Amino acid sequence: MTLTRTLAEFITATRFDDLPTEAVVMTRRSILDWLGSALRGGTTEPARIAHKVASRAMPGKDSTVLATGETLSALGAAFVNGTASHIIELDDLHQASTFHPAAPIIPAALAVAERRNARGRDLIRAVALGYDVGIRVAEAVNPSHYRYWHPTATCGVFGAAAAASALLDLSPEQVVHALGTAGTQAGGLWEFLADGAMSKHLHAGMAAHDGILSADLAAAGFTGATRILEGPRGFFAATADPAHPERVTAGLGRDFKIVENGFKLHACCGHTHTAVDAALLLRERIAGRPIERVDIDTYRVALDITDNPAPRTPYEAKFSIQYAVAVALLDGRAGLEQFTEERLAGDDIGALLSRTSASENPERTARYPAVWASHVRVTLSDGTVLEETVEHPKGMPANPLTDDEVAAKFHDLADPVVGHHTAARLVEEVNRLPDDPPVVDLILPLVQRLPVI
Amino acid sequence: MTLTRTLAEFITATRFDDLPTEAVVMTRRSILDWLGSALRGGTTEPARIAHKVASRAMPGKDSTVLATGETLSALGAAFVNGTASHIIELDDLHQASTFHPAAPIIPAALAVAERRNARGRDLIRAVALGYDVGIRVAEAVNPSHYRYWHPTATCGVFGAAAAASALLDLSPEQVVHALGTAGTQAGGLWEFLADGAMSKHLHAGMAAHDGILSADLAAAGFTGATRILEGPRGFFAATADPAHPERVTAGLGRDFKIVENGFKLHACCGHTHTAVDAALLLRERIAGRPIERVDIDTYRVALDITDNPAPRTPYEAKFSIQYAVAVALLDGRAGLEQFTEERLAGDDIGALLSRTSASENPERTARYPAVWASHVRVTLSDGTVLEETVEHPKGMPANPLTDDEVAAKFHDLADPVVGHHTAARLVEEVNRLPDDPPVVDLILPLVQRLPVI
Repeated sequence: MTLTRTLAEFITATRFDDLPTEAVVMTRRSILDWLGSALRGGTTEPARIAHKVASRAMPGKDSTVLATGETLSALGAAFVNGTASHIIELDDLHQASTFHPAAPIIPAALAVAERRNARGRDLIRAVALGYDVGIRVAEAVNPSHYRYWHPTATCGVFGAAAAASALLDLSPEQVVHALGTAGTQAGGLWEFLADGAMSKHLHAGMAAHDGILSADLAAAGFTGATRILEGPRGFFAATADPAHPERVTAGLGRDFKIVENGFKLHACCGHTHTAVDAALLLRERIAGRPIERVDIDTYRVALDITDNPAPRTPYEAKFSIQYAVAVALLDGRAGLEQFTEERLAGDDIGALLSRTSASENPERTARYPAVWASHVRVTLSDGTVLEETVEHPKGMPANPLTDDEVAAKFHDLADPVVGHHTAARLVEEVNRLPDDPPVVDLILPLVQRLPVI
Repeated sequence: MTLTRTLAEFITATRFDDLPTEAVVMTRRSILDWLGSALRGGTTEPARIAHKVASRAMPGKDSTVLATGETLSALGAAFVNGTASHIIELDDLHQASTFHPAAPIIPAALAVAERRNARGRDLIRAVALGYDVGIRVAEAVNPSHYRYWHPTATCGVFGAAAAASALLDLSPEQVVHALGTAGTQAGGLWEFLADGAMSKHLHAGMAAHDGILSADLAAAGFTGATRILEGPRGFFAATADPAHPERVTAGLGRDFKIVENGFKLHACCGHTHTAVDAALLLRERIAGRPIERVDIDTYRVALDITDNPAPRTPYEAKFSIQYAVAVALLDGRAGLEQFTEERLAGDDIGALLSRTSASENPERTARYPAVWASHVRVTLSDGTVLEETVEHPKGMPANPLTDDEVAAKFHDLADPVVGHHTAARLVEEVNRLPDDPPVVDLILPLVQRLPVI
C-alpha cells in the first residue's frame, strides 16, 4: 500500500471514540487557543485586507468570519480566519517539526463543520486527524525542507485537506485524491522574512483555503496524484533532501501527534520563551528592588535568531531576547502590549536594555533541540544575585498549560475583541465540544454579540 | 534595482502603443486560440467538477464562465475557465521554456477585464505583459525546474498576476507585492503524470485564480516579498538549479515573448507533430492507394515520450507517435475525434499500426531542441516509396499559422459547443479587440446564444 493511501485509510477508519482522552483534551485546548489568535488577529490590517478581497471573491452564507460575525463561503471564511490567526505570533507550535498546525488546519475544519452543520465530535475528530497528517508530513520533510519552505503553508495544506476530508466523510479513494490535489498546490517560501511581508499570514489562509478546495474537488470526482508524498516527482522529492517517509507512519493510530502540541504564552519568538519564563520567576523574587544588570545565557540557535540588544521596531523587539527579558522583568508579562511602539519607547526599557547581555552556553547548545534551555541572572543594586534556569518553555508538552491557563490566555486575546461575557461563553462552548453539541453553538455567541465600541 | 522591481516597472510603464504590431497580432491570435480550448474543454468532466465546486465557493456576477455563460466572481471564473482550457491538449506552447502560457494567463486577464469593464486594448496589453513575465520566469528556471515542477502552474501564476496587475493599474510598488504574493503561492508538481490525474488542468485554473488573488490583495495593501524571484529563499533558489536570472531581463521591452508563441494543431503530444505534419503531406500524394508500410524516423526525445506501437487508451494514443501518424494517414487529420475509444478500436487503425515503425535518427537528435524534425517514409503496395521531412511543427513560430488557420482550428473546437454562428461572431469580436471595443462585446455572443442541443 502506498504511503498516501495508508494515510487516507487511517483518516477514514479513525472514529472519535478511537481518540485517546489526552488527544481529545489537547484538541479542545488547541481549538480554544486558536480561537483567541483568530479573534485578535482578525482585528488587524492584514486580516481586514484579506476579508475585503474575499468578500468579493468568495461570498456566501456557509461559514462565519469569526472576528466580524459576517459570513462567506467556506473557502472564504477559512481563508480569512486562517490568515487572521497567524498574525499576532501567538498561535500554537509543534516544536519537533517547526510547524504551526492550528492556523492552516482549524479554520478549514471549522468552516466545513459549520457548512455541514456538523457536531462537536465531528470537529474534534477532524482537527485531531488534520494535526496528525500535517505534523507527520512536516516531520517527514524536515529539517531540510525548512531551508526554503514554510511548513505552516506547505505541510499545512495536507492537514487542512485531511481535516476537511474527515468532515465530508470521503471514501479512502477520495481522500487519496484530496491529498494529491492538496499536495500539488503546496507552496510557501520563506523569502517574505527579508521584508517582514504579510505572506506569512497569507500562507496559513491559503493552506486552509486550498485544503477545503481539495476535499471539495475530490468529493465531486476530481482526481489527484495517488503518490503525491512519495512519488518520484512528488512532494518529498521536490522539497526535501533527504525526506524521512518512515516518520509518516511511525506509531500511526497509536501516537496522536496533537498530544505533542505546544502553546505560546508570550507574544515573541519561541526562542526567547525559556528566558522570559525565567525572568518572570525572577521578578517575583526581586519584588521591586533596583536591578543593576541582567545576564542571559542560552543555546546557539536562540542567539542566531534573537540576539538583538537594540531593537528599533516592535517586530524587531519580538525577535530580541534582551528586550523580551527586560520587558518581562519590568512588566511581569510579555504579551501583545509589551511589543508596541509606545512600550518600546519607554525610558525604563532603554535603561534596563543597556544593562542586559546575552551569551551562548555550549552545554545548552549541545542539548538543543531536545531542550530549549535558558538561564537568567539578575544582579541587584545591593549586590544580591538571583538566578533561574528554565528548560522547557511554559506551554510546551514538557511544561504544559492547564485548562485555566489556556482560558486565561484566551481571555487576554479575545476580551478586547468580543467582550468578556462573549469570550466566557466561547470558553464554555469549546469545552463542551466533546459532549457533541452542534458546532453552530460555538458560532452563535460570535454572531449574536453586540458590537464592541 | 531588484529583478522583481524591474519587472514591476516594466509592467506599469508599458502602454498598448508600446507593443510592436507583431505582438498585437500574436496576442489576438493567442486569445482566439485559447478561447477554443476553453469552450471545448469546458464541456468535459474535469471542467464540470471545477464549475460545481466554484459555484458554491466563489459565486458572483463579476465574470463569465465561457462554456456555460453563467457568472462567478472573477476568481471563480478564472479558476473554471483556466481549468477548462488546459484539458484537451490543444492550448498554446512556448517551446523554449516548455510553458503553456494561455491557460493560466488569459483566463485571469479576461475575468478581471470583464469585472473592470475594460476595453480591448487593455486586454491585449494585459495578456501580452502576462506572457512576457510568465515566459521570462519560465526561461529563467528551466530546464532544471522541469524535473519536479510544472511551469504552467508555477510560472503561470507570475504571468497571471502580471496580467491582472496591468488591468488593475497597480503602482510599481503594488506590482512588486502582487508578484511576491503570487510567487509565494507557486506550486504544481509533475507527480500527477504517473496517474494521468486531473491535476494538470487544476494547475492552470489555480494559477489563474492565485494570480488574480495576488493582484487584488496588492491593490488593497497586502504586502509580499520584494525579491520573490531572486532572493536567497525565493522562487529561483527553491525550485531551480541553476537558475538563469539574466533571462528575465534580456531584451525586456524590446523582444515581446508572445511573438515566440506557438499553436498546437493536433490533439496529441507536441513531440508527434512534425511526424503528423509529414503524414498529412504524404496523404495527398498517396491519393487513396494501398499502403504496405510506414517508417518514421525522428529525434530521441520524441521517442522517449511517444514510442508506443500499441496504445490501449485514448490518453496513450495521444502519446503514441505511431498511432498519431497512422490515424493522420487514414483520416487526414489528428483532431479530438481521432483520439477517442471508438477511433482507437477501428480495424483500419489496427491494421496500419501493425505495419508502422519508429526509430531514432541521430542527426535529428543532435539538432534538437532547436529543430524538432521528423521524416516519414510510406511504402505503397505497388512498391512506390514516398517521403516527407518536416522540421518545425505547423503552428510554431518557424512554421506559423495564418489568421484563417487559427480561425479554422477555433471553429473545429467551438462550433460543437456554441454553434457555428456564435463561433463566427467570436472570431470577429476577437479580431477587432485592437480597435478597442469594450471587452464585454466579446462576452455577449456567449451569454446571448441559444442553448445548443
